[in-house]
This record gives sequence, C-alpha cells and structure tokens, in this order.
Amino acid sequence: MSSSRFSGVLAPVITPFRKDLSPDGRRLVAHCKWLLNQGVSLAVFGTNSEANSLSLEEKITLLDQLLDAGVDPAFLMPGTGSCALSDAVTLTAHAVKLGCAGTLMLPPFFYKGVADAGLYAYYSEIIERVGSPALRIYLYHIPPFSQVPLSLNLIDKLVHAYPTTIAGLKDSSGDWDDTQAFLSGGWSDFRVFCGSESFLLQNMRNGGAGCISATANVNPAAIKALYNNWKDSDAEAAQQQLDKIRNIFQGFAMIPALKAATAHYSSDPDWFTVRPPIVELDRDSLAQLQQQLSAAEFEMPGLKMGLG
Amino acid sequence: MSSSRFSGVLAPVITPFRKDLSPDGRRLVAHCKWLLNQGVSLAVFGTNSEANSLSLEEKITLLDQLLDAGVDPAFLMPGTGSCALSDAVTLTAHAVKLGCAGTLMLPPFFYKGVADAGLYAYYSEIIERVGSPALRIYLYHIPPFSQVPLSLNLIDKLVHAYPTTIAGLKDSSGDWDDTQAFLSGGWSDFRVFCGSESFLLQNMRNGGAGCISATANVNPAAIKALYNNWKDSDAEAAQQQLDKIRNIFQGFAMIPALKAATAHYSSDPDWFTVRPPIVELDRDSLAQLQQQLSAAEFEMPGLKMGLG
Repeated sequence: MSSSRFSGVLAPVITPFRKDLSPDGRRLVAHCKWLLNQGVSLAVFGTNSEANSLSLEEKITLLDQLLDAGVDPAFLMPGTGSCALSDAVTLTAHAVKLGCAGTLMLPPFFYKGVADAGLYAYYSEIIERVGSPALRIYLYHIPPFSQVPLSLNLIDKLVHAYPTTIAGLKDSSGDWDDTQAFLSGGWSDFRVFCGSESFLLQNMRNGGAGCISATANVNPAAIKALYNNWKDSDAEAAQQQLDKIRNIFQGFAMIPALKAATAHYSSDPDWFTVRPPIVELDRDSLAQLQQQLSAAEFEMPGLKMGLG
Repeated sequence: MSSSRFSGVLAPVITPFRKDLSPDGRRLVAHCKWLLNQGVSLAVFGTNSEANSLSLEEKITLLDQLLDAGVDPAFLMPGTGSCALSDAVTLTAHAVKLGCAGTLMLPPFFYKGVADAGLYAYYSEIIERVGSPALRIYLYHIPPFSQVPLSLNLIDKLVHAYPTTIAGLKDSSGDWDDTQAFLSGGWSDFRVFCGSESFLLQNMRNGGAGCISATANVNPAAIKALYNNWKDSDAEAAQQQLDKIRNIFQGFAMIPALKAATAHYSSDPDWFTVRPPIVELDRDSLAQLQQQLSAAEFEMPGLKMGLG
C-alpha cells in the first residue's frame, strides 16, 4: 500500500487564462510538463490554481486535456473538494477514472462552525459514492481560507473507517503546532505535507512526506533538491535559501505574483491574467517583485522552451 | 423602473432532499406554492436553502421545475452568486432567461481579504456577460458566512456603473449599523432587505424594502403582516411576537430546525433530510424545539395540504 501514496514535492499548479478569462489548456499542459521536468508532481486545482473560481465542467475539461497531452496521472493530485457534495463526487470520480494517483480534498467551506459529524458525512458520502478501491484522498486543512479546520478527531474517524482511502493531509494552517499534531496522529503510513516549503526541513525531520507549496510553481528544482537531500549537512543552508525566495513572493499577493514571475521568465504576458476576485499586481508591485527576484539571482530555467 | 424592483418579505426557501440526498423538485414546488399563498416571495438558493451544497446543474433543474409547475418568476429571486465566475454567469443568465424578477448575488467567498477591485470585476463581468437589460441584482452582504463583506465604496461604484441592474442588497451581517449605512447610501431606489425579521420594523421605519429571512419559511404570514402594517400602532407588539418565534429557531441550528418544523407541521418526515456538512437536529434538540413551538402556540396553517 505504501508505494501507492504520494511523497515529495507538489505544485498547486497555477491556472492560465486567456484574455476572455477562459482556462487555457495548452499553457497548463506546458507548465505541467515543465514542472514534471523539474521533479515535482502536480496538485492541479489547488488554492493557488484559482480552482474555486473554475466551474466543474472547466476542471473536467482541463484534466482531460492534461491526460490527452500525455501527462502521467501517477503524478496528479487534483483538488476535488467543493461546497457542493454532488460536484465533489463528480470530479473525484472523474479523477479516479483517469487514474489520478490521489485527490486533495477541501471540506465544504461556506457554512462555518459545522459539526465534525457533518464533515465526516461529506467525506464518507464521497468515498461511498465514488466507490473505488483506487481512490486516495489527501485531506486539505487550510483554515485561513476555508475557515473550516479539520480536527484530529475527524481525521481519526475517517482513517479508521477508510484506512486505504484516507492517505494523508496537506496542512496549510501555517502553524507548525498543527503540523506536529497531524504527524503525531499515529495513523499508519499517513502522509503529511506542509503547505509551504518554509516548513519542509522541519516536516521531513519529523516524519513528514514532503510539501505542496505555491512557490513550487516557480522554484521547483530547489525545493525538490532539499526534499531529496534533507539529511545532508548543508540542509539548513538549503532551507534558508528556499526561505529567501519564498519570502520574496510572500511579500506580494501570492497568485498574481506567481503568475507575474511565470509571465516574466517565460516572456509570455498571457500568464498575467487572473480571474476575479483575484487581481493582477499593480505596476509598482510588479517592478518591486522583478527587482527583488533579480537581486536574488532567481531564474526559472527552461521555462521559455516549455511554453513554445 | 421602481415597479420592477422587489419589496416585501422573501423566504430563502429550504431545499428538500430525498433519502439519497438528491434534490426533491416536487416538494420544493409544493413548499414554494404554500409560501406564495402566505404572501411571501421566493429567494430560492439562499444560505438557508443549502444552495452552496448544490451543483450548478441541480440548481438549473430545480429552477426549471418551479417554472414548469407554474410558479410565477415575478416572485423569484434565486441566489446565483458563486465562487466560480463561470457558474455565476451561467445561473444568472438562466434565471434572466426564465424571467426571474431578480437574483441575489453572493460575492466569491473562498479567497479572503480580496480587493474591492476584484469584487467589482466579478460583479461587472457577470453583468456584462449576461448582457440583459432585464437583469436585477440584489447584492448579498453576509460576512458571518462569506467572510467577504461588501463595502460602501464597492456598492457605490457598482450602482454608478450599472444603475438599472444593481437594485438593492440583502444585509445578513446581523449588525444594524451595517444596515443603516446601506440605507444611507444615497442610491436611487436602492432596496435594502434585512436578513432577519428581527430588524423588520426598524428597517421599514428607516426606508428599507422588507426582509429576506430564514424564518419566513415557517412563519411567513405573520412576518408579511408586519411588513404590510408597520405603520400601525400595534407594530411594536407584532415585532415582539415575531421575535418570540425567531428566538426559538435561533436557539437551534437554523437549517435543520426549519426543516424539522416543516417536517413536523406537514407530517412529512422526508423534510428532515439535510445535505452534508449540515446535520439533522439530535433527538433532544428536536424535542425541545417542538416543545417550545407548541408552548408558543406556533402553527404552519395549510402546510399539509400543500404537500399532498
């Protein structure tokens, strides 16, 4: 069973839009292939993918386009959680049908203060309705956005009811205490991913499985290198170098900053486009971002080629 | 133009589900017809409708079923806002095509702390893409759930850009200061609905247009009576009587409490069913609710007949 679970570094892949705001499957394929070449897997339809700004149909079409273009579903962990149980079931079933190795699953996030019993019912209904032994779910704990945290008690009940299906969790709380609690859950082969590479070394030293991080869209190789070499003597220095780049991006709105960097280093201005309610960086912010990245000698090698 | 805007009392109509959690169009039609008979209009797909737990397709099907059953779209204000711009456009366009007199529109609610410019872009893209002079939008300010408040500055920009389309607002902040600020916006014929009948008299005395309230699902006639007679000398007493019933329901989780009352007074236990993450009332809560409603001599007259 162990070999069927994810580990390593995944990028919540930014979603390219055309000028008319329609999703651009061709650019998504190119970016995904570049990311795979850099050694990271693909958590498409994550928070930084503007996934909740996409319709179910748009997500299904993009996923089909990735598979049609030859992206190996063994490297795909699409986000399939939704406020609507019916949407979550449809997208999860589609991901399983395509052979995706896992799905990252938000709780329903409109209602606040919901009971664990309601969240348990949501996840168990999805699992029962999809009804596939191939389904692997990575729970998505992201209180800053969802405002619906996943409790240890909830996870414990899910793991015991569905030990093969519930494969792990992404912790985007930004709070190491939460990560530590998930790592200490005592669940067999439960894969804990931190939501930022800032916690990568700490996570690996405490039994974590890797990270699923926004900045893996732009700095994938270096993050993957620390994942590969976290036991090395220079790991602390590598972590500090990752933090330096991460901190630059964190100084701006993350999604437009990731897209701006991708647009800049690929010389492809179409990458700037975001969907409402996200807005592009203003001119001053854009200039500051470019200046800071340049000062840090930041690069996205090979990106241009991938977008040809 | 004035006559084309809503006023009065609307119910965010509770959505019935079958045992398999699929939406039950037949029961929805019956409940809507009962509500219309009681004098209130229909804000289907609101917060208390579990609307965000429904897929786009499910909402379109339910709306079609209402029209097919002869519900007059002049009384319909479906909720059409969504995290996904594409879904909001599709559902809004469909509602306009069916002749719905208005739509209630949530902002996208996954991302928090978004700029007014991003919310403006969301609403304006919907308006431009739907492209119909018949569209009337009632903005939905509900920070306790959306965590995305609508600022006076945002509303002001929208009203000035789209004076015919932006017709009003539902204020579910629960904060009278917010309602007062919307009432004082100075926008021509801007219809402000409070999100609870607890504020109905106060809202009417300050130039408001009525209320869109959860408990209008169960206590419609009395709420409508206060709307009709708010200038009468016994209006304060009528408000207190409404508050008494409202306070009973507010002592429980609202959605399952509304459904439990509907199930009880219609002798139709299928109404108990909720979708995850909402959970049904437990036995003790159910008994308490029934005891309190009985003590208040609460009734839902004619309901049973409507569900035949």
